[in-house]
Amino acid sequence: MLSEFLLAEMSRLGAQDALPLHRQLYEALRRAMLDGKLGAGERLPSSRDLAQDLKLSRNTVVAAINQLSVEGYLASRVGSGTYVNDNVPRATPGRPARQGSNPPASGVPAGRLSVRGQALATRFCATELEVQPFTPGIADFSAFPLTLWQRLQNKHWRMTYPDMLDYNDSGGYAPLRRAVADYLRVFRSVHLDADQVVITSGTQQSIELCARLLADHGDTVWVEDPAYWGAVKAFMATGLKLHPVPVDEQGIQPSTADSAQPPRLIYVTPSHQYPTGAVMSLPRRHQLLATARVHGAWVLEDDYDSEYRFSGPPISSLEGLDTDGRVFYMGTFSKVLYPGLKIGYLVVPKPLVAAFKQAHYDLNRPGQMPVQAALAEFIEMGHFTSALRRARQNYGERRQCLLEALKPVLRDQHPDGPSISGAEQGLHLCLRLPSSVDDRALAQRIAQQGLTVRPLSAYCLARSDLRGLVIGYGYAPLAEIARCGPLLANAVRQTLGS
Amino acid sequence: MLSEFLLAEMSRLGAQDALPLHRQLYEALRRAMLDGKLGAGERLPSSRDLAQDLKLSRNTVVAAINQLSVEGYLASRVGSGTYVNDNVPRATPGRPARQGSNPPASGVPAGRLSVRGQALATRFCATELEVQPFTPGIADFSAFPLTLWQRLQNKHWRMTYPDMLDYNDSGGYAPLRRAVADYLRVFRSVHLDADQVVITSGTQQSIELCARLLADHGDTVWVEDPAYWGAVKAFMATGLKLHPVPVDEQGIQPSTADSAQPPRLIYVTPSHQYPTGAVMSLPRRHQLLATARVHGAWVLEDDYDSEYRFSGPPISSLEGLDTDGRVFYMGTFSKVLYPGLKIGYLVVPKPLVAAFKQAHYDLNRPGQMPVQAALAEFIEMGHFTSALRRARQNYGERRQCLLEALKPVLRDQHPDGPSISGAEQGLHLCLRLPSSVDDRALAQRIAQQGLTVRPLSAYCLARSDLRGLVIGYGYAPLAEIARCGPLLANAVRQTLGS
Repeated sequence: MLSEFLLAEMSRLGAQDALPLHRQLYEALRRAMLDGKLGAGERLPSSRDLAQDLKLSRNTVVAAINQLSVEGYLASRVGSGTYVNDNVPRATPGRPARQGSNPPASGVPAGRLSVRGQALATRFCATELEVQPFTPGIADFSAFPLTLWQRLQNKHWRMTYPDMLDYNDSGGYAPLRRAVADYLRVFRSVHLDADQVVITSGTQQSIELCARLLADHGDTVWVEDPAYWGAVKAFMATGLKLHPVPVDEQGIQPSTADSAQPPRLIYVTPSHQYPTGAVMSLPRRHQLLATARVHGAWVLEDDYDSEYRFSGPPISSLEGLDTDGRVFYMGTFSKVLYPGLKIGYLVVPKPLVAAFKQAHYDLNRPGQMPVQAALAEFIEMGHFTSALRRARQNYGERRQCLLEALKPVLRDQHPDGPSISGAEQGLHLCLRLPSSVDDRALAQRIAQQGLTVRPLSAYCLARSDLRGLVIGYGYAPLAEIARCGPLLANAVRQTLGS
Repeated sequence: MLSEFLLAEMSRLGAQDALPLHRQLYEALRRAMLDGKLGAGERLPSSRDLAQDLKLSRNTVVAAINQLSVEGYLASRVGSGTYVNDNVPRATPGRPARQGSNPPASGVPAGRLSVRGQALATRFCATELEVQPFTPGIADFSAFPLTLWQRLQNKHWRMTYPDMLDYNDSGGYAPLRRAVADYLRVFRSVHLDADQVVITSGTQQSIELCARLLADHGDTVWVEDPAYWGAVKAFMATGLKLHPVPVDEQGIQPSTADSAQPPRLIYVTPSHQYPTGAVMSLPRRHQLLATARVHGAWVLEDDYDSEYRFSGPPISSLEGLDTDGRVFYMGTFSKVLYPGLKIGYLVVPKPLVAAFKQAHYDLNRPGQMPVQAALAEFIEMGHFTSALRRARQNYGERRQCLLEALKPVLRDQHPDGPSISGAEQGLHLCLRLPSSVDDRALAQRIAQQGLTVRPLSAYCLARSDLRGLVIGYGYAPLAEIARCGPLLANAVRQTLGS
């Protein structure tokens, strides 16, 4: 019955829009879910069975299923197939009429979200956001020098000179742009003038600005697989076609097959890939820039977690290796200093600086000038680098403590046991598990102890081979990590033992 | 030669994509401008001539030209035709290869903006942003109680309890959402629970969130003509098709012809239309809701300038008149209290609240919790309403002073002279001029005296009948208005006399 519905939908779509087959199947499956023909939690027939029933190639079916997984409609569970996600919104008959339809004179009741709205409102991971020990992506801000900060902020709130009025399209408060440029030149080998720095509200805004100004609706963006979910949503919101490229221990590794989907943008987190923690190797960085050159693509370098390197030599930013101005470099202060700051930065290649500033002003009405001014002075006075130094020491101890706690469950103790990736840098590491483990179930079991870790498989877009736990050591103090580390290790051991 | 180029481009596009004719012409003209076949400042052949040369209907040509004008590529000057805007970016041969093309093995040099990027980076009005006496859309913040504000802000920066960590998808700091709800219920007759309030960084973000969640790429949005340029850019950025609907002295007035372009969204500024200053009448409000109902469209009510009403009875918000939950109501504190605040709010109909909060968190990473907390307390303590009361008194005096200064040039003195619209409410008024006046040239002449007014024609999308000056009285203090008002009146009189 499902295949009949799908065939009917596909033939309707094929007649109407001349869509490629995988896109027809994608639309038909989506419609089946929204109409409730495929209910939440229901298991999809295998790609092999679907291909046979619908007389399609297996590749066509897999492409449609991958796209739906990327958009959050479907979720795969190892060994048991693909399921409709619990949070897929259901369309109602009251949906507003679309162009071309003839609404009755009595009117159309208020409806629901648009198609992209449904995808954008789908919750990633299907779990509540909880900040507890081991929640990845969250740092400890207890050491932030609040009194000093308040003094600076008060001072600049008092100084309401014209720059402070927030009505300017200069790309941000000039002294802050200079301070960011100085920092990036010294610590991240980025080549830049202060004029190239655009102050944003953070990485999310930086990504969107790039996607909008550099790519058109329907253009392809290569993203890492597994991926940082925030970036995935930003690309979905800006109408780009996501093409997932696998990440290994050296970072993103495009194959010749990927080149069949030539990118307009390539988005990477080379300093500490989110979530695997891979640090992109130098040869891989050169390769990526060469690939970008072949395709005439822009590279978006999200230098996430670049601030803390615990072992191995520092590696230059992609931007620093780029010889032809195709890298946009982005970072944020919210993860390093204080999340309430909501200040990030984007480094724009010179020929496009004016365009980016203009569009940023028009689209985002950037501002918070008193906060920008306070931050500029904070950095100039040397407080930023000393805060980083203290934090590196601090996080280093927490990292060590977590590694100790996890040691008993690692591979060198148990031949088929887990291993650790991505602990050289940043504020999280990844405990890799055998592909037979249900990492979502394990993460839920751990949550019952008041700890939050994320299942690695939840970040996967097209691939289904990865299992693991993404574990943060930024948020909880050392004593908490010492107390909770063994609980975590125990839960892993129990799961592997069973 | 131009028509040959256009015909060749159109036949190429027609063969390739089966685009409608007006869209083919739009693309061909755009290409001609980007390639320099039509240079900046060059005059376009008349729509009649173009239609004849290209063997197209005149409507097709007008549709293409209107779209290009809306996107900022073309500008019309009364009586002298349509010109290529000075700020149209020029494409270079180094533009990155698009999908389907075969880049040479040696690679493609870094390129330029995408098509939508070019439109988004085009500067509106082609003038620098300057804050001087009479700049519209800017208020006076010198009365803002800074010391009190600093005390509140410091207090909440100290209280780093979990809510302050900024990692939550609740739609904002709960006490602030309650305070906003209380204010809107009392002062704007909005029907709502605090749970429906989503705190945003301002109206720009509120509009984008609605456009993304309620409409799909290519859907139609009705906008007022003339229009608030910030909203126009937000809709362009989110891929919507703009359909301009004329505004008269009672607000937006859709005709039956407009219904041929059925809207998915209708965006209005009913309290004080930007830029004409029209206050939407009650019958017109009911009509608009009925029209929205017929089309199954959502209404986005930007309640801009609702805070200050100087004459006439207050009019209820559209949201308050809405009986079937199709109005999204939005406002901002940045215009009323302090621009550095960057805090606005969006009221979401109940069935969609959860989806909006989730998507807002994922896409915008909202935050600034200490500032939200300070603002909540500021409102609860009654400082917000007393600030509004003081400001209303203050702005009322400035308005009166400006009206006095403009009196000598009004119609009742000179039979064919100018008139004033939109002075009952808000912080700007519109001096309407005969359609023979070049209002852009007049605004430039006034700028030479250190004053900033905006030409009304610069806000027009499809229509070419409006001329006038948009004059703000929010920014400059009374003494400045008393000094500069006569200068402004003189410049107008000289232009009309010549």
